[in-house]
Amino acid sequence: MDGTSESPKHYCGVVGLYAKTPVNIPEKLFFPLFSLQHRGQESAGVAYRKDGETVVYKDIGMVSQVLSRYLDKDRPSKLGIGHVRYSTLGGNKIENVQPIHVACNKGEIALAHNGNLSNSSSIKNNLFQGGSIFQTTSDSELFVHLISRSVQPSFHLALIDALSQMQGAFSMVMMHDDSLYAVRDPYGFRPLYIGTRDDLTVIASETCALDIMKVSDRREVKPGELIRIDDTGITSEIYAPVPEPQRCIFELIYFARPDSQVFGQSVHLRRKQMGAALAIDDPVEADLVVPVPDSGNSAALGYSEQAGVPLDYGLTRNHYAGRSFIMPTTSERELAVRMKLHPVREVIEGKRIILVDDSLVRGTTARILVRLLREAGAAEIHLRLCSPEIRWPCFFGIDIPTRNELISNHRTPEMIAEFIGADTVQFLKLSRLLECVDEPSGYCTSCFSGKYRLAVTIPESEQNLPRDNEPAT
Amino acid sequence: MDGTSESPKHYCGVVGLYAKTPVNIPEKLFFPLFSLQHRGQESAGVAYRKDGETVVYKDIGMVSQVLSRYLDKDRPSKLGIGHVRYSTLGGNKIENVQPIHVACNKGEIALAHNGNLSNSSSIKNNLFQGGSIFQTTSDSELFVHLISRSVQPSFHLALIDALSQMQGAFSMVMMHDDSLYAVRDPYGFRPLYIGTRDDLTVIASETCALDIMKVSDRREVKPGELIRIDDTGITSEIYAPVPEPQRCIFELIYFARPDSQVFGQSVHLRRKQMGAALAIDDPVEADLVVPVPDSGNSAALGYSEQAGVPLDYGLTRNHYAGRSFIMPTTSERELAVRMKLHPVREVIEGKRIILVDDSLVRGTTARILVRLLREAGAAEIHLRLCSPEIRWPCFFGIDIPTRNELISNHRTPEMIAEFIGADTVQFLKLSRLLECVDEPSGYCTSCFSGKYRLAVTIPESEQNLPRDNEPAT
Amino acid sequence: MDGTSESPKHYCGVVGLYAKTPVNIPEKLFFPLFSLQHRGQESAGVAYRKDGETVVYKDIGMVSQVLSRYLDKDRPSKLGIGHVRYSTLGGNKIENVQPIHVACNKGEIALAHNGNLSNSSSIKNNLFQGGSIFQTTSDSELFVHLISRSVQPSFHLALIDALSQMQGAFSMVMMHDDSLYAVRDPYGFRPLYIGTRDDLTVIASETCALDIMKVSDRREVKPGELIRIDDTGITSEIYAPVPEPQRCIFELIYFARPDSQVFGQSVHLRRKQMGAALAIDDPVEADLVVPVPDSGNSAALGYSEQAGVPLDYGLTRNHYAGRSFIMPTTSERELAVRMKLHPVREVIEGKRIILVDDSLVRGTTARILVRLLREAGAAEIHLRLCSPEIRWPCFFGIDIPTRNELISNHRTPEMIAEFIGADTVQFLKLSRLLECVDEPSGYCTSCFSGKYRLAVTIPESEQNLPRDNEPAT
Amino acid sequence: MDGTSESPKHYCGVVGLYAKTPVNIPEKLFFPLFSLQHRGQESAGVAYRKDGETVVYKDIGMVSQVLSRYLDKDRPSKLGIGHVRYSTLGGNKIENVQPIHVACNKGEIALAHNGNLSNSSSIKNNLFQGGSIFQTTSDSELFVHLISRSVQPSFHLALIDALSQMQGAFSMVMMHDDSLYAVRDPYGFRPLYIGTRDDLTVIASETCALDIMKVSDRREVKPGELIRIDDTGITSEIYAPVPEPQRCIFELIYFARPDSQVFGQSVHLRRKQMGAALAIDDPVEADLVVPVPDSGNSAALGYSEQAGVPLDYGLTRNHYAGRSFIMPTTSERELAVRMKLHPVREVIEGKRIILVDDSLVRGTTARILVRLLREAGAAEIHLRLCSPEIRWPCFFGIDIPTRNELISNHRTPEMIAEFIGADTVQFLKLSRLLECVDEPSGYCTSCFSGKYRLAVTIPESEQNLPRDNEPAT
Repeated sequence: MDGTSESPKHYCGVVGLYAKTPVNIPEKLFFPLFSLQHRGQESAGVAYRKDGETVVYKDIGMVSQVLSRYLDKDRPSKLGIGHVRYSTLGGNKIENVQPIHVACNKGEIALAHNGNLSNSSSIKNNLFQGGSIFQTTSDSELFVHLISRSVQPSFHLALIDALSQMQGAFSMVMMHDDSLYAVRDPYGFRPLYIGTRDDLTVIASETCALDIMKVSDRREVKPGELIRIDDTGITSEIYAPVPEPQRCIFELIYFARPDSQVFGQSVHLRRKQMGAALAIDDPVEADLVVPVPDSGNSAALGYSEQAGVPLDYGLTRNHYAGRSFIMPTTSERELAVRMKLHPVREVIEGKRIILVDDSLVRGTTARILVRLLREAGAAEIHLRLCSPEIRWPCFFGIDIPTRNELISNHRTPEMIAEFIGADTVQFLKLSRLLECVDEPSGYCTSCFSGKYRLAVTIPESEQNLPRDNEPAT
Repeated sequence: MDGTSESPKHYCGVVGLYAKTPVNIPEKLFFPLFSLQHRGQESAGVAYRKDGETVVYKDIGMVSQVLSRYLDKDRPSKLGIGHVRYSTLGGNKIENVQPIHVACNKGEIALAHNGNLSNSSSIKNNLFQGGSIFQTTSDSELFVHLISRSVQPSFHLALIDALSQMQGAFSMVMMHDDSLYAVRDPYGFRPLYIGTRDDLTVIASETCALDIMKVSDRREVKPGELIRIDDTGITSEIYAPVPEPQRCIFELIYFARPDSQVFGQSVHLRRKQMGAALAIDDPVEADLVVPVPDSGNSAALGYSEQAGVPLDYGLTRNHYAGRSFIMPTTSERELAVRMKLHPVREVIEGKRIILVDDSLVRGTTARILVRLLREAGAAEIHLRLCSPEIRWPCFFGIDIPTRNELISNHRTPEMIAEFIGADTVQFLKLSRLLECVDEPSGYCTSCFSGKYRLAVTIPESEQNLPRDNEPAT
Repeated sequence: MDGTSESPKHYCGVVGLYAKTPVNIPEKLFFPLFSLQHRGQESAGVAYRKDGETVVYKDIGMVSQVLSRYLDKDRPSKLGIGHVRYSTLGGNKIENVQPIHVACNKGEIALAHNGNLSNSSSIKNNLFQGGSIFQTTSDSELFVHLISRSVQPSFHLALIDALSQMQGAFSMVMMHDDSLYAVRDPYGFRPLYIGTRDDLTVIASETCALDIMKVSDRREVKPGELIRIDDTGITSEIYAPVPEPQRCIFELIYFARPDSQVFGQSVHLRRKQMGAALAIDDPVEADLVVPVPDSGNSAALGYSEQAGVPLDYGLTRNHYAGRSFIMPTTSERELAVRMKLHPVREVIEGKRIILVDDSLVRGTTARILVRLLREAGAAEIHLRLCSPEIRWPCFFGIDIPTRNELISNHRTPEMIAEFIGADTVQFLKLSRLLECVDEPSGYCTSCFSGKYRLAVTIPESEQNLPRDNEPAT
Repeated sequence: MDGTSESPKHYCGVVGLYAKTPVNIPEKLFFPLFSLQHRGQESAGVAYRKDGETVVYKDIGMVSQVLSRYLDKDRPSKLGIGHVRYSTLGGNKIENVQPIHVACNKGEIALAHNGNLSNSSSIKNNLFQGGSIFQTTSDSELFVHLISRSVQPSFHLALIDALSQMQGAFSMVMMHDDSLYAVRDPYGFRPLYIGTRDDLTVIASETCALDIMKVSDRREVKPGELIRIDDTGITSEIYAPVPEPQRCIFELIYFARPDSQVFGQSVHLRRKQMGAALAIDDPVEADLVVPVPDSGNSAALGYSEQAGVPLDYGLTRNHYAGRSFIMPTTSERELAVRMKLHPVREVIEGKRIILVDDSLVRGTTARILVRLLREAGAAEIHLRLCSPEIRWPCFFGIDIPTRNELISNHRTPEMIAEFIGADTVQFLKLSRLLECVDEPSGYCTSCFSGKYRLAVTIPESEQNLPRDNEPAT
């Protein structure tokens, strides 16, 4: 990640493949994994079964860097899994790169995991007491410990035993010996899809990864569903009681690719609706709607159509920015933003601008963007965000800064407008956001509201902040 | 280059810097060069003067790969030049990477060059006869030979002597000992800008490279202008008679970044106008305007506004595609396109689509795109290109395939529509294109018309093709 | 390893450092680790404590490749450990690179291990039953499992508990939180030294690693000794009953650097004695003693002095061979040998040669060498090895081929001479070898005799071979 | 180079190959070039002809690093040349890496060059005046300029014309279109050999490079000989009058591999003779002869045999040192020496040592070595060098420091002994050295005597130094 985005960070993407007749699995995994690159750019890896052994290729780096050396040779195999990972700065260690691969009394297990457990510390404590050792800091390692420790005699029962102890978000793919598994937590926090074309079954975080494999016959893996695939076919069960879902609404707001479906909905269409809702709730006289590319593209289109204000590309994005280059000094954040986003003076000059983006975290990048637009001659700048104010931590797989760093914990929209130099700033109301999605009651919105459906432990230092008495709306 | 684009290929971008008080020139060059990355992704380099010596860092690779290792240390210097380069497959040799740096009887010369000479073979023959040796296949080497060979006693006169022998396109920056030079050919084929902020003078192919340096006080280097910068200041002269310009119209259609100015015009606005002109000339009943991202973005917006047909993002682009990864087999062109561009079914399905792009070269990528859109349920597909039919080679710096490979040399628009599977295909008429730009008589449009203002030699095999009797309109 | 050596392969080297006042531990570890490079060239790593955290740098590669990027910055720390590793072909996975680092209920443990457990499969089975998971195939992981599983309340007691369950060869260095440990198995299979200079305590496999740190005040870590170092000083205990030692005699024959001491003896002097013993037992009329460089250098000198036959460098070694280059085809073993070793015709021609090397494993390289010497005109070639015939597997840390591949299991010395083309071949008798070392009863010589002091399980396929009825002498 | 050697530096090694039936030339070139790695470790390259084109692979790095990626594919070709290069610090630029490859009016020329012209500045001045440009600082570029500039109509005559203008040392291999050339200067400064096996002709600087190709039928390319190889066979001529030779005597003292022949003599045997001569001229009571490995190995053996004093390996060399690792601070020269060379205390302690090496340049490494031996308990240290005192610059291809840095220009042997801490220091007398080689009058010994056979220009600052009135003996 390049440090120039205003959006929260995400953790992972996963892929699983099962081919009835052996294919070159590392090469086949490359394409869907590449399609999920946006879900994690820091490390990548695959594991596959070959002649009764599990082979793992993984490293720090982008999918193409890590895997391209393995595409040339034919490695015929029936099943494999893959993973892309975003990690916080301190955690970018080779030990944490997935898939993880272990041997235990239940057999060989390889695992790729998207999500975050909310009870990981209590699980870890129990395992510690029982003498388990930890070589990574990932939840995935906890999970295989639980399987291995289970007193259940079979792998299948041990798996369900382990799953029953895990609380929080997990969409996983797994290999146990020569079987492929896919599992999603009962709340369905993170998306997971499965589809089949001819001999090939593909499981992936988003539908774009199925599309690249031309898999059009597909469905969501259900919350609480456990799928097993081997030579005898595909079996499925609901392994736990399924409460009302807690789908992560940020998948629709920001994380997923616009050309994907997640939670049964088109990401692009939902974002257009969010933009339209913003136009209805917070109308403003203006000349132009300008998206922050690419995170604001879909919403800006929806806003423009709804408001009847023309859209124009007042900011362009340098597509070479932000990946391979680390700025020499972090103080040069402004320069990093300028390298990535650039105003088009001829569009902006003298115009009243509605600037549309997905969300606001610290406000630092927005502040630089507004300054760039002012320098390019914008007459007015109205920032519209298609998410409510982010004010609480996430325990389910999103990397949100500490509450102290979240601008909405200290400033009202008016104060934010002043801070970043905009004329007005408006957030999409939570109630309106929920009107834009299917089954509105089935979403986790705790980063806006602080209301967590599962038990979580908020650090004391995070508990009280200036604006805590204001409810999310 | 990733082989998935329908557009012609370009050659180079150049940057020059002069700082009255010494700065870390390699680091300062990094940012404008990075802004010009779209003009050449295959090699990059800088040259700068340090303590009376010329230091060159150059290599195969993107700007950040080649230069990032040189940004950490302070290398105080007053002047330097930089270059990015696209090269045809066979020519991607380390020897051809620029800047080139030579010692000769006129002093030390380092040179970065954008363009192509149309009389290079006759110059080369003369030099051969005189005993010159060639270590590269670049026009830049010809130029320094001419300077060195000149009987003129001073560097300045030798420079003008050399320039007077060169025909064709060249926008160059140059260091001679401790002076910086910028020069543009009398026809002004390629863009070149100069600007100053405080102590710093920046010269670059496009204004986006000046913007990243916060240089707002700027102007075009004029056709036929020679600029010299040293500690005594900036001097300028018109070194040759200036005929009517021959600006490369493809800079406006495709090459330049939309947020740049070239030839005194906003690239984005001109593209919007081209899109609008298409809407006027070739109207069609449709539900949606869909850009081919990113080359068709600006024109699609102009088309949509003019036609009153809503724009939507029916194709999304995977921004990780196309650079670091070489497909294992070239036969997998379709897979490469799929990795980069993806239809959004929810937008496309059942819709009559106007698909907007910049130009059509071979038609192979367009054919795949149309198939993808059909698979996503498009009811009708009308391809609109904001350039006329490309039917002739370029001798001035664009890499166009042989005439035999150009689809418009063998097929009428109706035949092309059939070939690629579109309902209709229409090109922007040449006369309409010229109405979209300033000073319409001052452009080179020979790749459409075959009418070259300068003497060129078309290979015999290229001279007669099925559609040669049809004039460009 | 380059596949051109006739000698058996070894596993690892270890280093530990404790500095009373913080120093740049990764840099300080570099030098002793570099001195142990000959003990393992396939991967390298260090772990050190910094501000209460354990940092690990490790990767596939030589010491300088893996660590050079970490030497520039100052990373002040009090303690660290390092490891170099040789691995069999299939085992060269990033997961197995040491040091390993785990968190468990006894605290954080980092471990670097030289040796091999003979009861690893029974330990692993027990741990499996108890639900442990394994992410590597190393004995080191077994050891930390045992510590973590121990019911002993303190780390110290758990450590001794774990040690008491391990049978076989281990010389280890370890960090537990902010303490450094060194431990050697009760049989003392592998060497381990400790020394102190000023504030710095260094532990290493061989004395050459202490010498590079200018540590001259040193001693062997004793068999069965456990040493703990922290801010309060150095404590030592004998943690288990100490039987008669089983020092690996191959450390003296081949593994250790000639300028090292291991087992309290100068490696170079012992090798000279072995050479001299060969000269006494198997005298032969000859003109020259020629060492196989560098493994036969010391012994050849001893042979020459004893026999009164002049030594000359009839084979030279290309010091650039064998590390960075992998031969395109493994069939080109002869070419690989030729690239590394080259006869000096002017020395060899017409001469009766006594060729001295350390040992014979498969005989394939010796066969090529003899052919090279014949081509260079040698009149007679008498091969002398300063080890007995290797005929049995090692369970304590040496990588010896299967018995079927060991030439001495199928051929008598006379048959070997015929096979490799030498005039005579003689091995040093086991009884004579033991006369060359201190405390002759304290060595493991089971690879010659098949008599193992510890319980081991020889695979059935390995149990009976043509020459099994012949005793080692 | 690792900066830990006391010996002067050398420049280059060359290889040429011609195969009557096409072979994979890059792979075939790899082996002889690898054998010449000791002649230059900083860059490497090959050029070969394929389908009428010249392909060049070259880069900074060792032979295996640069070429290993080109060995896999079959590139059938008849001829190619290769080069390894040592370069002074400032000159290690990619531009200077050889072979160089140019196009000119005489055709395509690729060239690999070992040596140094003594009249390069006057040639360069002339070429400058004629308008030539220079992209490298190598003599090779001068040579192709001369060929290109020659008024002679044919390549062959132009070649001889160019050769006739060059003074100094050059052993070259060259490709002109589809012919291979080898040429040696009339004084024969640098060695060059040619040999044939079956269809293959190999040309190389030393015989070790022919040996790796199993070419035993070989001879020296003669001083002043020009050889041309093409499909019609091998032709040879003496292209210039041949004066008394000026073979570089340092090839025999230090540069060439001991297993090579150069100038028709075995390097190893000559070094043994030099060692023996030292023993005769400067006898000393001592217990041991100790070589500085590996430069002193052969001479120490000769000394030991002559003096009847036993040789022992009192210093061992770490073969991993000195290539891939750059010390973080140059002040750590002592550490660098310790990483490479290590005394064996058990050999040294209490002994009177005769330490044998090839030469003394600055004396700084020798000073460290003596200190190491003292620390290891040496009772006396007598340093013996098998070359006379080096006191003058070389103009023919050796990199000798400025005269001010040469220890023998400021100190007598007695003063040197005091400076480095040895008991005595003795150099081999020039007259004795010449008795050790064939045709003693045919050597260049100007670095000892200051008497140059060719006209050279010694910088004024170098002309007068304290010991200039003392003749070399």
